[in-house]
Amino acid sequence: MTRLHVQVNPASMLAGEITEERVRAGAAAFGDGLALSFGTTPAALEAGLAEAEVLLLTGKAPLEDLGRRAPRLRWLSYTSAGVEWLVDTDFPPRLQLTNASGTHEPKAAEFTLMAVLMLNNHLPQLLAATRERRWAPRSGGTVAGRTALILGMGALGGAAATALQRQGMRIIGNSHGGRPHPAVAVMTTGEGFRAHLPEADVLVIALPLTAATRGLIGRAELDLLPRHAGVVNIGRGEILDDAALAAKLREGSLGGAVLDALPQEPLPPDSPLWDTPNLIITPHCGLYDPTAYGPRCLDGFFANLRRFQAGEPLAHRVLPDRGY
Amino acid sequence: MTRLHVQVNPASMLAGEITEERVRAGAAAFGDGLALSFGTTPAALEAGLAEAEVLLLTGKAPLEDLGRRAPRLRWLSYTSAGVEWLVDTDFPPRLQLTNASGTHEPKAAEFTLMAVLMLNNHLPQLLAATRERRWAPRSGGTVAGRTALILGMGALGGAAATALQRQGMRIIGNSHGGRPHPAVAVMTTGEGFRAHLPEADVLVIALPLTAATRGLIGRAELDLLPRHAGVVNIGRGEILDDAALAAKLREGSLGGAVLDALPQEPLPPDSPLWDTPNLIITPHCGLYDPTAYGPRCLDGFFANLRRFQAGEPLAHRVLPDRGY
Repeated sequence: MTRLHVQVNPASMLAGEITEERVRAGAAAFGDGLALSFGTTPAALEAGLAEAEVLLLTGKAPLEDLGRRAPRLRWLSYTSAGVEWLVDTDFPPRLQLTNASGTHEPKAAEFTLMAVLMLNNHLPQLLAATRERRWAPRSGGTVAGRTALILGMGALGGAAATALQRQGMRIIGNSHGGRPHPAVAVMTTGEGFRAHLPEADVLVIALPLTAATRGLIGRAELDLLPRHAGVVNIGRGEILDDAALAAKLREGSLGGAVLDALPQEPLPPDSPLWDTPNLIITPHCGLYDPTAYGPRCLDGFFANLRRFQAGEPLAHRVLPDRGY
Repeated sequence: MTRLHVQVNPASMLAGEITEERVRAGAAAFGDGLALSFGTTPAALEAGLAEAEVLLLTGKAPLEDLGRRAPRLRWLSYTSAGVEWLVDTDFPPRLQLTNASGTHEPKAAEFTLMAVLMLNNHLPQLLAATRERRWAPRSGGTVAGRTALILGMGALGGAAATALQRQGMRIIGNSHGGRPHPAVAVMTTGEGFRAHLPEADVLVIALPLTAATRGLIGRAELDLLPRHAGVVNIGRGEILDDAALAAKLREGSLGGAVLDALPQEPLPPDSPLWDTPNLIITPHCGLYDPTAYGPRCLDGFFANLRRFQAGEPLAHRVLPDRGY
C-alpha cells in the first residue's frame, strides 16, 4: 500500500484545479493499494509529511528539512512545470522530484502558434493604428517557409516545434542534450543557437529558469536577429533582458514580441513594458487551459503513480542539480 | 495563337504584383502560341480590347459595352477574388469571367486560424487590460474540440475549414450547393446554418457579397450565438450588420470579433467600430500575401490559359447571375 498526501496551497491559482473530489476520484482506481490524505493547512502538511511516501503538491509550501519532517517520503510530484523555487532545496537523496511539464502541451502548442501568427501578420502594428483610428493596412506573408528558432526542447518547446512545423515552418531547436526531435530540422546545443539567430524569423523562448538560462537573451543576442524578427517568451521572464527588448522595440529594430512570462509577476503598473510599442503582454495565462488543467494534471500524476508502484522510472523527473 | 491583353490599373493595390516583367516571364513559356500586349492607360485598354481574346485585368476599369469594344473577347480574368463591382455588367454571352479566388488560400487559412486562436485566448480582453496597465490573466481552453461554423465554402471558406479542422476543431459548413468538404463534419445549405448558430464557438464569414448575402448576419443571428462566441469576417463587410455586432460587443453578450472586411473601406476616423470593445480590426490586409500574391496569381492565370487553349473548362469561373 502506498501512502499519498495531497497538499494544496489555497493561494495557488491551481487550487481550484486539484480538488479533493478530483483527487479521490482518481485514487479510487487504486482501491486498497493507496491510502490518501488531503490537506490545505500547514498542520495538514506536517501530518501528511510524517506518514507519506508520496507528496502531490499544488502551489508553494515550506519544504526545508524534509529528511527529518518526512522520513518516508520518496517522491514529490509538483502540479506546475516551473520548479525553480524548489530545486535549491536540500532534499534527501532518496527523494525523486517530478513536475507537470506535459500538462501544458496542447495549450502551449496553440498559444505559440497564435503568437507567431500574430507577429507575422503585424498585429501589434495594426492594433496601434486602430487605437489611432487609422486605416493602415499591413500584410505579412505566410509563416509557411519561415524559420523559428526554439530555445528549450522540453515539453513546451517540443509542443511548439510540432505545431509550428505542421504549419510549414522550418524549425531550429536548441537544448542541453541536443536530442533529435521529429519536428526540428536543425538541432543545436549549448551556445550553438547563436549562429542561427540571424536566420530566425521568430525566436521562441521555452526554457526553464536556471543559473545557465538567467539573462541568456540580452542586447547582443537580440541584435543578431533580423530587424523583422519576432520574439515569443513562454518560458520565464528572467531569461530575457526585458529592458534590451523594450529598447529595440522602441527604436524599431525588432518586429514585435509576445511575452507570456514577465520579469516581475504581476507586472507593476509603472512598468515601462505596458506601453512598449509592438509588444503584446499575456499575463502568464497563455499556457493554462482552465477547461482541462486539473484533470489532465491528475491523469498524469496517477499514471506516474502506477509506475511508482511498479518500480518503473517516473515520467517528468526533475534533476535538482540540472534545475529542470 | 491566342491574343492576350493585360491591363493594370495603377491605382490598384495589386499594381505592383502584376508587373509587365512577371507577365512576360510567364508568357514566354507559350512561345508563338501567345501574342501579348500590356497596358496601364485608358488608350492601351481600348487598343487591347479591340484585338484581344483574353483580358487579364488588375484593378477596376470601365467595362461597359464590351460587345462592341471587344469583338473577339471570350475570357476576362480578374486578379482579385471579389467581383461584386462587375457582375452586373452587361457582358456578351460569349464572355467567360474568372477570378483569382484560389490565390488567397494559404494566407486565408493562416489568418483565420490566427483570428480564431486570438478570440479563444481572450486576446481582445488582454489587450484592453494592457492599455490600462492592469495584470488581469484570463485563459481559454484549446480550440481543439470546439466548433466553428463557416459560412461560404469557396476557396477562402474551404481553406479556413481545413486549417481549423487540422487544429482539432469540429467544422459546420454552409454553402449554396451543400457539396461535401473533407474538413466539414456537418454541411448545411441556404438557411440551414441558423439551427447551428447556438453550437458555434466561432462564426466565420467567408461569403462573397451578393443580393442573397447582403445583411445576412444581423442582430437576430448574432443573438443565437453563445455569449462566449467569436465572430470572424473574412468575406465582405456588408454581409454583417456592424451596428448590431458593435452593440452586442458593448453590452458584453458576445465574446469578441475580428473583422478583416469592413462596411466602409477605408473605415472613416469617426466610425464607432474603432473603439468598440473586444473588436480587432485588420484593415482588409489579412488575406493578402505580399511575398507571393503576384507570382501565385499569375501561375493560376497561366494554368488557366493552358486550359483555355486546350478547350478545357476554366477554373475559378464566376457566374454573373450567381454573383461569385
